[in-house]
Amino acid sequence: MDKATQEYVDAHLEETLDDLKRLTAQPSISAQRVGVLECAEMVAEELRGAGFEPAIMPTADPGYPVVFADSGHDSPKTLLFYNHYDVQPPDPLDEWDSPPFEPYEKDGRLYGRGISDDKGPFIARLAAIKALRATKGDLPLRVKFCLEGAEEIGSPGFHDFVARHADALKSDMCVWEGGGVNWDGRPLITLGVKGLLYVELECRAASRDSHSSYAPTVPNPAWRLIWALASLKDAGERIKLRGFYDRIRPALDEELAALRRLPDTDDEFRRDLGVEMSLGEATGFEFRRRMIMEPTANVAGVVAGYTGQGAKTILPAVARVKMDFRLVPNQDPQEVLTSLRSHLDEHGYSDVSISVLTSEHPARTPIGDPFVKVVADTARTVYGSEPYLQPSMTGTGPQYPVQEILRVPVASCGVDYPGNRIHAPNEHIRRDYFRLGVLHTAELIEALGRGV
Amino acid sequence: MDKATQEYVDAHLEETLDDLKRLTAQPSISAQRVGVLECAEMVAEELRGAGFEPAIMPTADPGYPVVFADSGHDSPKTLLFYNHYDVQPPDPLDEWDSPPFEPYEKDGRLYGRGISDDKGPFIARLAAIKALRATKGDLPLRVKFCLEGAEEIGSPGFHDFVARHADALKSDMCVWEGGGVNWDGRPLITLGVKGLLYVELECRAASRDSHSSYAPTVPNPAWRLIWALASLKDAGERIKLRGFYDRIRPALDEELAALRRLPDTDDEFRRDLGVEMSLGEATGFEFRRRMIMEPTANVAGVVAGYTGQGAKTILPAVARVKMDFRLVPNQDPQEVLTSLRSHLDEHGYSDVSISVLTSEHPARTPIGDPFVKVVADTARTVYGSEPYLQPSMTGTGPQYPVQEILRVPVASCGVDYPGNRIHAPNEHIRRDYFRLGVLHTAELIEALGRGV
Repeated sequence: MDKATQEYVDAHLEETLDDLKRLTAQPSISAQRVGVLECAEMVAEELRGAGFEPAIMPTADPGYPVVFADSGHDSPKTLLFYNHYDVQPPDPLDEWDSPPFEPYEKDGRLYGRGISDDKGPFIARLAAIKALRATKGDLPLRVKFCLEGAEEIGSPGFHDFVARHADALKSDMCVWEGGGVNWDGRPLITLGVKGLLYVELECRAASRDSHSSYAPTVPNPAWRLIWALASLKDAGERIKLRGFYDRIRPALDEELAALRRLPDTDDEFRRDLGVEMSLGEATGFEFRRRMIMEPTANVAGVVAGYTGQGAKTILPAVARVKMDFRLVPNQDPQEVLTSLRSHLDEHGYSDVSISVLTSEHPARTPIGDPFVKVVADTARTVYGSEPYLQPSMTGTGPQYPVQEILRVPVASCGVDYPGNRIHAPNEHIRRDYFRLGVLHTAELIEALGRGV
Repeated sequence: MDKATQEYVDAHLEETLDDLKRLTAQPSISAQRVGVLECAEMVAEELRGAGFEPAIMPTADPGYPVVFADSGHDSPKTLLFYNHYDVQPPDPLDEWDSPPFEPYEKDGRLYGRGISDDKGPFIARLAAIKALRATKGDLPLRVKFCLEGAEEIGSPGFHDFVARHADALKSDMCVWEGGGVNWDGRPLITLGVKGLLYVELECRAASRDSHSSYAPTVPNPAWRLIWALASLKDAGERIKLRGFYDRIRPALDEELAALRRLPDTDDEFRRDLGVEMSLGEATGFEFRRRMIMEPTANVAGVVAGYTGQGAKTILPAVARVKMDFRLVPNQDPQEVLTSLRSHLDEHGYSDVSISVLTSEHPARTPIGDPFVKVVADTARTVYGSEPYLQPSMTGTGPQYPVQEILRVPVASCGVDYPGNRIHAPNEHIRRDYFRLGVLHTAELIEALGRGV
């Protein structure tokens, strides 16, 4: 890669990491509406420092604005960066080795809530842009930034925002958040997200809890929910909603080939979580295929009656369960919801209500897209090793509106590595991977500018 | 009934209710070990006031002594009174109209935690004894009192206590706690208790909660517990444990006849609880038969994962459920436990652990027992109406050791009425039913003394 750019990046790395620490020190907890607007202002300031004239644009909820910036270059191609500036709540606080909003570096790692997800990737991209502006005089193509403030709470309003501002967001390709390297240090590029339908089911059978001696005649909503749930997925993990699997696009040959090239990580994964055996005893390729390609019906939480210490002979009045369905192309969260309602009704559980908490479509960019080739080629150059292409994250993000409305290919590449503990205590980035992420971004922008 | 005794009871009723209020003002919350020993001392003092020389006798846990007293009369017959001096926790405090341990009277009702369950019945019995001693010069038979301090936490150690002190407790019949009148004011005499097996089931699948995107490969203990529970009882309320129903003694003709004579209360019951329809759409006789004669498998509580507001995409590491099985003669809690373990193992849920929190046998006294006739005849005299005989309570108490070790008939009669809200806020007794309970006890002692 370009020597001058690399030298600039290295010469300014401390400065860049100082920027990152300052931004990380600003809490921006969307779930608690803590510091979000203040952080939006800081993000805008960072963008101004890299030569942009950003706008803080409202979404349906004025508490979660999008920070948008456009380099405005007259260029045949436009690259859009998606990031978010909100972070997960830092709980549990007592499991952090130091306060989550007082970032610090130790042994080549920088710690802090949001430093990896997703402030580090944003600052890395700005650092690449600053380096190119400094060493090349200007950027070789038009660059836009779109930073969301509510990603960690399911991106409410983002779809509408993209639809309303499709002209401003117009671009030819999008670099997403996430991505970086795998456990072995080889670059990892992911090309999609799973969809999500997150619902809360509730069953109420009486106006108040009663004595469990009434169990011969009083309906127990916990039992009703247990039976309803057992009808939704069998012990072989087969999801019984009518049509649930019908719309799934079968895995493409190139997706399966990409999955085959990914390394085996299931042993390490199980050890880390203290899990004896994967579902279906899946290992190696089959473990990856399930993680990346399969939809799920997960019980995220369930509660009814007395859950404290010891015995209390109670018959609960109400029972609740939180469920998330992860969806893969071409499943549709609205269809799954309709099917869930029908299933419950047909199985005699019309008394079980459904509230939708989050809904997001799955999205994937074809592995064969020319943009993916540029991302992979530049990664190979910078990292000096063959990149992994992962057809999808196992998780969810609002890629669908970008693909559906802007109709552009999307790839994740950045500064992460699998050990960085996003959403968990002691979230961190590694300095070496951060530096490589900056260099890769600069190389990618250059390559896209050359029309490679 | 005897005029002099009645006049004495009425003349001393205020004094008696003052004693009751004083005893009720002393918290004795066994679940929290609050005031239990202090209350035992007060109970002993009350017994001394009625001419006894009580002993405070330790059980296996010295925090929960039994208060025992024996009138010591040289008599062919001995009557044992069972009561308990501990009370349920007063929570939820904010639903009480006044502080639970500051008893007061309003509109003929006396309010306070434990005033009905079970301090009122105890004081009523003492009042009857004082009246007989005052008007007759002495008691016509030997009377013993046994007051437990841990009934509300499942009577741990009571079985052992009865076995160890069988000689001291030796008697010919036992008047239990509970009993009084039904909604219509006619006396209600109950002749048994259901057994109880209270267990906590736990399933753990990982060392910590993880991200729900891992659901394709990480076992979810909430799902496992849901499937295990669904295998235990079907949606038709049939309990699937092998042999669960085999040992149940079929209802006797006289039990069914007694059930038929009980009034219909299911409409009122459902209205009170806000329940639309009873299980099996049971009404009238069938409603009573189920409540009194059927065993249950109840989910008292279940918890796993995230149960707070909003969405959290988590895959729980552990799931727990609390279950109580109410048992009827001749079911055995140990057999049910063994069957539960086998069932889980055979259905592939060896990873679901079982902890036993409470275990109690069912017990019933035959309706045709001569003692029951005396209780009923004296109730008819005092209340002026035909008594109801209920073959069993719907709930549980430690009658089994009394029947099994002391081998005596047991009947509940006392001062309660169905509206007195035991275990709930605003627990109370009615002054008129309390007075009738005192009179009935005196009449019963007299009759037993006459050898009727």
